[in-house]
Amino acid sequence: MKLQSKNFLFGGAETKEVVDKGVVRQILGYDDSIMMVKVWFDRGAVGYRHAHEHSQVTYVESGVFEFTVGDESKRLETGDSVYIAPNISHGATCQEAGVLLDVFSPAREDFLAAEQKT
Amino acid sequence: MKLQSKNFLFGGAETKEVVDKGVVRQILGYDDSIMMVKVWFDRGAVGYRHAHEHSQVTYVESGVFEFTVGDESKRLETGDSVYIAPNISHGATCQEAGVLLDVFSPAREDFLAAEQKT
Repeated sequence: MKLQSKNFLFGGAETKEVVDKGVVRQILGYDDSIMMVKVWFDRGAVGYRHAHEHSQVTYVESGVFEFTVGDESKRLETGDSVYIAPNISHGATCQEAGVLLDVFSPAREDFLAAEQKT
Repeated sequence: MKLQSKNFLFGGAETKEVVDKGVVRQILGYDDSIMMVKVWFDRGAVGYRHAHEHSQVTYVESGVFEFTVGDESKRLETGDSVYIAPNISHGATCQEAGVLLDVFSPAREDFLAAEQKT
């Protein structure tokens, strides 16, 4: 493995990074093939539409989000989730403040590079 | 892709499966390279020590768990997480009822096969 996180990650101790207006990110466990990322959204904050080659699954831990995948949009609440195939355009708008868990395969090396810069 | 879930998965609508005493599993989004699984544990329920070739990251959504990875054990609570490298023996005991989010790379095809049988 080129990339590998610690085995145990404590939420209160791991780095948090402001990545956009009202959006805070914490990188959790990862290796070359997988990465989990926790993202806090203020109400009204936006995950702008974008696409990437990584497969993604996102779980709504709390809050309410309008999620768009390709040309379809749905309202997602706590316990709902979304699968995003590689290179499919997607985005989300936070309607009630909350937390998403994003997982990617392979790892988002761009996130690690950004964290090292801060 | 050989495997691919729906894009949108609503927690109240997806199948739940009793997989062990006090352990209930719900398969969330997946494709060949990634799979997210939600697991409810009653207090005292055990995820027995085992190993698999998949990389795994597990997030504690709620509850308290004693987690062992290799020869190291830690108490994990809400917001904590654990990374488990391929083929490393791991297990967990639930100390206060709660929910884990397990993610794997590649997908756990064995879980899909088990779900189709029920």
